[in-house]
Amino acid sequence: MTAPALSETGPSETAVWTLPGGLRVAFERRRTAGFAFDLRLPTGSAHDPAGHEGTTGVLEEWLFKGAAGRDARALQDAFDDLGVRRGGGVGLEATRLSLGGLADDLDAALALTADVLNRPTLPADELPILTDLARQDLEALQDSPTDRLAVTSRALAFPPPAGSPFAGFGHPASGTVTGLAALTPGRLSAHLRRLGQAGGVLGLVADLEPGRALELVMARLGDLRPGASETVPAAYVPGVRAWLPDADAEQTHLSLTAPGVSPRDPDWLPWQVALGALSGGSASRLFHAVREERGLAYAVSASPVILGGQGFLATYAGSTPERAPETLDVLIAELARLPRGLTAAEFGRARSGLHASVTFGAEGLRARAGAMTRDVALFGRVRPLPELRAQLAALTLERVNAFLAGYDPVRDLSLVTLGPQELPHA
Amino acid sequence: MTAPALSETGPSETAVWTLPGGLRVAFERRRTAGFAFDLRLPTGSAHDPAGHEGTTGVLEEWLFKGAAGRDARALQDAFDDLGVRRGGGVGLEATRLSLGGLADDLDAALALTADVLNRPTLPADELPILTDLARQDLEALQDSPTDRLAVTSRALAFPPPAGSPFAGFGHPASGTVTGLAALTPGRLSAHLRRLGQAGGVLGLVADLEPGRALELVMARLGDLRPGASETVPAAYVPGVRAWLPDADAEQTHLSLTAPGVSPRDPDWLPWQVALGALSGGSASRLFHAVREERGLAYAVSASPVILGGQGFLATYAGSTPERAPETLDVLIAELARLPRGLTAAEFGRARSGLHASVTFGAEGLRARAGAMTRDVALFGRVRPLPELRAQLAALTLERVNAFLAGYDPVRDLSLVTLGPQELPHA
Repeated sequence: MTAPALSETGPSETAVWTLPGGLRVAFERRRTAGFAFDLRLPTGSAHDPAGHEGTTGVLEEWLFKGAAGRDARALQDAFDDLGVRRGGGVGLEATRLSLGGLADDLDAALALTADVLNRPTLPADELPILTDLARQDLEALQDSPTDRLAVTSRALAFPPPAGSPFAGFGHPASGTVTGLAALTPGRLSAHLRRLGQAGGVLGLVADLEPGRALELVMARLGDLRPGASETVPAAYVPGVRAWLPDADAEQTHLSLTAPGVSPRDPDWLPWQVALGALSGGSASRLFHAVREERGLAYAVSASPVILGGQGFLATYAGSTPERAPETLDVLIAELARLPRGLTAAEFGRARSGLHASVTFGAEGLRARAGAMTRDVALFGRVRPLPELRAQLAALTLERVNAFLAGYDPVRDLSLVTLGPQELPHA
Repeated sequence: MTAPALSETGPSETAVWTLPGGLRVAFERRRTAGFAFDLRLPTGSAHDPAGHEGTTGVLEEWLFKGAAGRDARALQDAFDDLGVRRGGGVGLEATRLSLGGLADDLDAALALTADVLNRPTLPADELPILTDLARQDLEALQDSPTDRLAVTSRALAFPPPAGSPFAGFGHPASGTVTGLAALTPGRLSAHLRRLGQAGGVLGLVADLEPGRALELVMARLGDLRPGASETVPAAYVPGVRAWLPDADAEQTHLSLTAPGVSPRDPDWLPWQVALGALSGGSASRLFHAVREERGLAYAVSASPVILGGQGFLATYAGSTPERAPETLDVLIAELARLPRGLTAAEFGRARSGLHASVTFGAEGLRARAGAMTRDVALFGRVRPLPELRAQLAALTLERVNAFLAGYDPVRDLSLVTLGPQELPHA
């Protein structure tokens, strides 16, 4: 265990410890009447066993159906008694349990979280209700064109490798109709063995002596089971062209996926700046070319997506069926001119935007706990704010453009559309 | 002008000033490297002239198409150069311009905001693009069952009084197809006269001497035009029963509206506690009865809505067409038993939840600026946190139940559903 160290920046103290069982704990002291923590365990919907899509999502709900002698109602009452705010849930690659509340309740909140993970009742009679709710969520997704498009895009661009035990990225956390039908109490209980310390990260912000914080976490989460930490590989398929027909849709939705940069790659920061220029504000290239100049689409965006430790670029626009072909042309033209580099003004704006993001991201308790957890999960450590600011200050236009000169997101583009008509390009 | 006063709570200082032109300014000092402000002007989509729905929404976009000698691109670049984060937009009753950024840029951010409001270019050639984008947004709303339901519910439960000059609450900020077709540059420019100091509130959080903060705001926003402040009355129609057919919908969506309590009513806090017990967490009545016990709906919620200075209760659930009738029965049964009061445990949980909300709502810079603005707009002042906490502590179960004994949300309920079949009740 590393000794807690004072950071260089004013009043807060940041420390990262690794518990004997493997759980990494990132702690920051803040003068605050509250606390926030974010526990991230590296099992998400991508880890659902193939053919049993929905396993992680239903299991996570099941965990809250009673624990350590409390029935479902008593457990929910116990959380609500603390007045804590619960967040998190099942994502593609991880399950998060996040809580924020008043300082005095931190220990009780950690204890309840440990009960849910270590001592769940898992009552069999609740399962049909939970799978039924998951089915209802799937039906609601069917009514949302953008959600359907996002799931299908991932299914086509990131299919699971042949023989993979994992279902992968092509289904929502609520699963699939066939996957839900195949769930059994035994299979779900077996899946619970994955949720433990291995690869897990707890980000915690509170006004405590660091030693006392470590003591609390050790006492409550130190006996969390070993767990499993496996990365589901994101085997990207370039050149996908697909159309999801939707005769009744008023809009045509476009989803473009392209390779990007991994978080631990030295080009990560240059890529972030380039994405800021592409899609970071009202002066960004996509917003301007698609929306402001041509009025082609009300919504347009490009954002980084991290899957399997790799970075990808996800671009979306929703347009009218008539204008969808031109919208697509403009999106591709904007991606195609990235290798020609940014202007000095674009670079300055994108860097200012990142600078402000860094400051604001550190501001709220819950946001900070989440950011520390994400840092440890993606970068292996908490990136100190002064270091981030110094990196940004040291970054040059030349560095970003040298990276962009070799970055061609169009070459390996995958394209999925949803709407009443197929696009000429698609 | 009231002199800035130190608040009783530790490091922060809160002051509310009224500028000579009428703008109210709520300022709180925080030790922070950033700033955040939220400028709320009391003209929203409800103030669109009848027959010209979309006026406020399109005008707000138009304001950003150039100001004070900068063209659209230069203005957007100027905002992005600061790295500030823009928020806000057009709501039902107000238009908000919100910015957060680094401390050094506060003055420049205020100056840009003043330029947009006082010295916009309003170029005529941009208007067709903006109305076109608004039409596209309306088409996207058509693809969202929950958005369609929400707009139609408001249209039926809060129709504009006959002869009202205002379009009222029954359309989205993007307007209506016919309203957008009727917009002209002259009408939009005339509408701009509404956006000024009257009824306006600026919430500001920064690390400045209060005197210096007032000086900055006066210099930049002191000459904002007089503006208009009129409340669009929310004339509630009880007993609405309507069905929006959607043959292709996988789900049936239910929207229930009922009268509630106004923010300045002494029953406001008891009502908030009652809503917490009804829908505030996993132990809440609706969540438990609809979702946990019966698995009737994936999503269910009840929340307070404030329109025309009055409070209303909006309840929503999305269910399968088969289970929608039972879902409706359960929702109504839960509303109907509110007059019988809360249990001591429910009261305690709901109060803890509010207590935590108060603490967390004050946490982030932007959240705090927004909360101060909302306080002044709804309550006429910033409610100090210690006062809020003391009020919560002094609240008793007896007080809440005395209020609930006279609160019957079912009597005047309005119900709108959307789905493939009409409900037997509807």
